Amino acid sequence: MLVLITYDVNTESAKGRARLRKVAKQCVNHGQRVQNSVFECILDPGQCKLLKAQLLEIVDLEKDSLRFYYLGNNYKSKIEHYGIKASINQEGVLIL
Amino acid sequence: MLVLITYDVNTESAKGRARLRKVAKQCVNHGQRVQNSVFECILDPGQCKLLKAQLLEIVDLEKDSLRFYYLGNNYKSKIEHYGIKASINQEGVLIL
Repeated sequence: MLVLITYDVNTESAKGRARLRKVAKQCVNHGQRVQNSVFECILDPGQCKLLKAQLLEIVDLEKDSLRFYYLGNNYKSKIEHYGIKASINQEGVLIL
Repeated sequence: MLVLITYDVNTESAKGRARLRKVAKQCVNHGQRVQNSVFECILDPGQCKLLKAQLLEIVDLEKDSLRFYYLGNNYKSKIEHYGIKASINQEGVLIL
């Protein structure tokens, strides 16, 4: 299934900037960066649970925001992209 | 239906910063800001078409990125939020 992950990490402090780097790194490891703070990840339920746990370990829930959108398996018709950085679909099809 | 709109606007120039302000303003007018560059909008197909046309008038497709995710009408179970700025659902229910 496609899981869209979006985040706002408060980068006012060095700790915040470190959290941002860690969140991005975890997401890069599991999916496709489509915008600066937006990742699309093809995950099975177990992988999703694990990634969520990893991200929740990193973020500061009193300062940051983390959202998950579950787009299921039939997600291709649910996404439209305009402008730069069209994502290469992880299953091999370019999403336009 | 719920339409999730995410964007990255290149703010290296004053023109880019102006585009960012205009994109955000249009989105604020039509939906709920859930993160800095992420909006959730409850729209019918006509409203969606209009908002999309307005945003595409503003952005620079060679510098910016604009994505639409169509989450349909049964979107509540498809969204999870952690951390700050939990959104007030526009239909009256807090999405947690």
